[in-house]
Amino acid sequence: MRIDVLSLFPDMFSPMRQSIIGKAIDRGALSFNVTDFRDFTNNKHNNVDDYPFGGGAGMLLMPQPIFDAVDHIKEEAGDKGHVILLDPAGRKFNHQVAQELSHYDHLTFIAGHYEGYDERIRELVDDEISLGDYVLTGGELGAMVIIDATVRFLPDVLGNQVSAVDDSFENGLLESPQYTRPANFRDREVPPVLTSGNHAEIAKWRLKESIRRTYLRRPDLIHSKQLNDQEKMFLQEVIEEEKNKD
Amino acid sequence: MRIDVLSLFPDMFSPMRQSIIGKAIDRGALSFNVTDFRDFTNNKHNNVDDYPFGGGAGMLLMPQPIFDAVDHIKEEAGDKGHVILLDPAGRKFNHQVAQELSHYDHLTFIAGHYEGYDERIRELVDDEISLGDYVLTGGELGAMVIIDATVRFLPDVLGNQVSAVDDSFENGLLESPQYTRPANFRDREVPPVLTSGNHAEIAKWRLKESIRRTYLRRPDLIHSKQLNDQEKMFLQEVIEEEKNKD
Repeated sequence: MRIDVLSLFPDMFSPMRQSIIGKAIDRGALSFNVTDFRDFTNNKHNNVDDYPFGGGAGMLLMPQPIFDAVDHIKEEAGDKGHVILLDPAGRKFNHQVAQELSHYDHLTFIAGHYEGYDERIRELVDDEISLGDYVLTGGELGAMVIIDATVRFLPDVLGNQVSAVDDSFENGLLESPQYTRPANFRDREVPPVLTSGNHAEIAKWRLKESIRRTYLRRPDLIHSKQLNDQEKMFLQEVIEEEKNKD
Repeated sequence: MRIDVLSLFPDMFSPMRQSIIGKAIDRGALSFNVTDFRDFTNNKHNNVDDYPFGGGAGMLLMPQPIFDAVDHIKEEAGDKGHVILLDPAGRKFNHQVAQELSHYDHLTFIAGHYEGYDERIRELVDDEISLGDYVLTGGELGAMVIIDATVRFLPDVLGNQVSAVDDSFENGLLESPQYTRPANFRDREVPPVLTSGNHAEIAKWRLKESIRRTYLRRPDLIHSKQLNDQEKMFLQEVIEEEKNKD
């Protein structure tokens, strides 16, 4: 996969050179390019933004430098890629969107900073994505979050690094509590079943505690999941137990 | 505000030294510290993770290095801060949570990487936050997103940098389209009202287009907002106009 980012702060993308993403780039599983679109301005002060027509606070990114930077990527890569704008008005990013994006050969992110966008920039854009209902000082962190969550789905990226949190959204339930050494830490004991060696009992405990955590914290996930008979039984037990706690 | 982060990849936080966050740190409006909790291991291989009791894929962060690193912060800062764990099972991060976090004097983030957490680590934790329903390779980017969205609310941080996207969630509607120079770019014209100089008409156009965008993209926001009479009228007009487009 080729990833392009248009940004005024190329140095902010240094985290992408580290950890598993960095290793994937080193192995050639991923190519990652940041284009500073200030290099594409055609005004003498190299301005990338200007005041909004009709008045109002803040500055807007002008269309010209961004259109020209995208043209440049198109020339270099043969296509402009699937162009993504980070915007609070976009569709909400989630596990499914990440999976969907992982099927493209080429993604191009437009990351603004403080500024809004001239509306005409949206004509370049194939996809508008919002990380959530909050505002960031720039699109750089948002682009990195989307890239990180997306490239995890590429077969060449995670490799054998099986993640303990991988299943969080795969089976529609939150994970059960997990424990590692020592069995007793500052007087806090591991639940005995986990050190019993009885694998059938461990699997049952995990499923039930996974249902408990989901029921307590994310009941919406329980409602949208088709439960099998054993899961329904555990859910009933959990509801009873939690009721008796009060 | 003092911000501490516990992480195995301190270098990933370089974006925090840049842009407005970096400037706020330079001005002393913010102190930002990353602690590598591998420095607090008390085993000879400096391991921070181990296999889960009861079997299973992936590794878990052990409690000992993290407890000791938090103790160290407590000693240095006088308190451990409001301790936040990035976790898919946490409460969903949004504008309100960011505003709430901005009232603390001291925030401490625990950022894991690939691994899950030993359940006992949650006892240290005051707040579990999820960025959204997706999985990242590590908690570093998530912590930076939360920090960025939160410190924007500190009076000393944004300064006079009024952001054009600031209002996105303040008034419960998405922003109307915005335009800057040139008035004609590659044959795409700015809507004439915006260059008319008639401020009353501009304000009306913006409110109506803001309602249109919200109606088309985030009807949930319309439903949860108390509309005044003018807003209701515009919403009616927008619904009619959009119906006639089909």
